[in-house]
Amino acid sequence: MQLTRAADYAVRMMIHLATLPLGSRTNRAALAAAASVPEPFVGKILQTLTRSGLIESQRGMNGGFALAASPEVVSVLDVVEAVEGPTTLNICVKPGATCDRKAWCPAHPVWCEAQDAMTAVLRRATLASLAQTHIDEEPQWISL
Amino acid sequence: MQLTRAADYAVRMMIHLATLPLGSRTNRAALAAAASVPEPFVGKILQTLTRSGLIESQRGMNGGFALAASPEVVSVLDVVEAVEGPTTLNICVKPGATCDRKAWCPAHPVWCEAQDAMTAVLRRATLASLAQTHIDEEPQWISL
Repeated sequence: MQLTRAADYAVRMMIHLATLPLGSRTNRAALAAAASVPEPFVGKILQTLTRSGLIESQRGMNGGFALAASPEVVSVLDVVEAVEGPTTLNICVKPGATCDRKAWCPAHPVWCEAQDAMTAVLRRATLASLAQTHIDEEPQWISL
Repeated sequence: MQLTRAADYAVRMMIHLATLPLGSRTNRAALAAAASVPEPFVGKILQTLTRSGLIESQRGMNGGFALAASPEVVSVLDVVEAVEGPTTLNICVKPGATCDRKAWCPAHPVWCEAQDAMTAVLRRATLASLAQTHIDEEPQWISL
């Protein structure tokens, strides 16, 4: 019951993109450094996030990566689910006939409630709010 | 970010044990049937739950398996963690120096809050309350 490395890295990368001035773009190496993500991972995650419509890439001299939507409307849950697929704490939480016991099993509503509680927190956390904290709190490396 | 099959099965088995009359014991085959758990899995899960002190086993004619503590004081979280170890939604939620960015990363408090919200639900759900629902709602198979 642990977040994948890829989802963790994707959230860090999206927060960094949300700190950039509107209209600016960044490249793979800068993203890797800012989000502390190993470079081989960055390309794969960028592909996933582009395919899911959360970021857009532009080729050429002034190209690079940027958020595709306002950071006000993108949540940590959106990013996690873009990478991992829909959150499913247990198989029975999925819609449809995923478990024969679903209709009467006393554990089923507990899994649903636990998942709802967790996803509510991740849904409330927008990239905009996290980027603001990031700008306020990231250590400043002053070159002497 | 999904519960393991073993933890799901362990919760079902513990709920079944909590429905039994005080002082009675059951065997592996009955547990497998009641909890809809494939029999090869049952032995392994019973070992884990015994080792963690949640159930006790007794050999011999009147032997079998029973809860080691009152179902009022054992929660779904206790069972999940006996099987999966301490809940860790993300690596940074573990105590200690598990991530260099922990002190200032804006995502870190979100992972902590999401985990707390989820574990609070699992901690509130006692085996006693689930066993009661089970007794009230399990379909009755009437042999004609």
